[in-house]
Amino acid sequence: MTRVGQVVRLRPEKEEEYLRLHADVWPEVTARLSASGITNFSIFLRDGLLFSYFEHVGDDLEADLAAVAADPATQRWWRLTDPCQQRVDSAPDTQWAPLREVFHHD
Amino acid sequence: MTRVGQVVRLRPEKEEEYLRLHADVWPEVTARLSASGITNFSIFLRDGLLFSYFEHVGDDLEADLAAVAADPATQRWWRLTDPCQQRVDSAPDTQWAPLREVFHHD
Repeated sequence: MTRVGQVVRLRPEKEEEYLRLHADVWPEVTARLSASGITNFSIFLRDGLLFSYFEHVGDDLEADLAAVAADPATQRWWRLTDPCQQRVDSAPDTQWAPLREVFHHD
Repeated sequence: MTRVGQVVRLRPEKEEEYLRLHADVWPEVTARLSASGITNFSIFLRDGLLFSYFEHVGDDLEADLAAVAADPATQRWWRLTDPCQQRVDSAPDTQWAPLREVFHHD
């Protein structure tokens, strides 16, 4: 099992829209996550920063994320959520920027 | 089960010390966490911010966290880690500031 943490900015003027969308995420989107072995997925907010945490069960995280990215419903979803987000300065080329795990205790 | 996300700043000059400490956390400290029902505990780092995620199994998170805070070994540990951290501006009174969960998918 792999743990993944990521961060992205939430545009202040889009906070309300982002929260509304995430209170009722499309079933096709969450089903595609589950089909890719992505589980225990949370998104947290504070001070205009979004932090995501999820776990991946499977042999090939990269391929499973590529399957998510290729999914038409997910692409339609991201066309709504991407404009709510702003990439962090240190990672201008990725929507969600990876965090480094520095501690874990089961 | 309760999920908890938190954030705190890591002082740049203390990053090396913080990482060294967390590469080998004292067994008394992790044992006390486990005794309080705290599990699946990760800390992530990016851009001078530390994000923690843990899960709590039990009926009384507040009491279980109080038991952690009252533990002498944990207090000694925090005397090493607290000086590495700086409270975020929006929560000057708490070491780790709580995040708001805005999405979850099992």
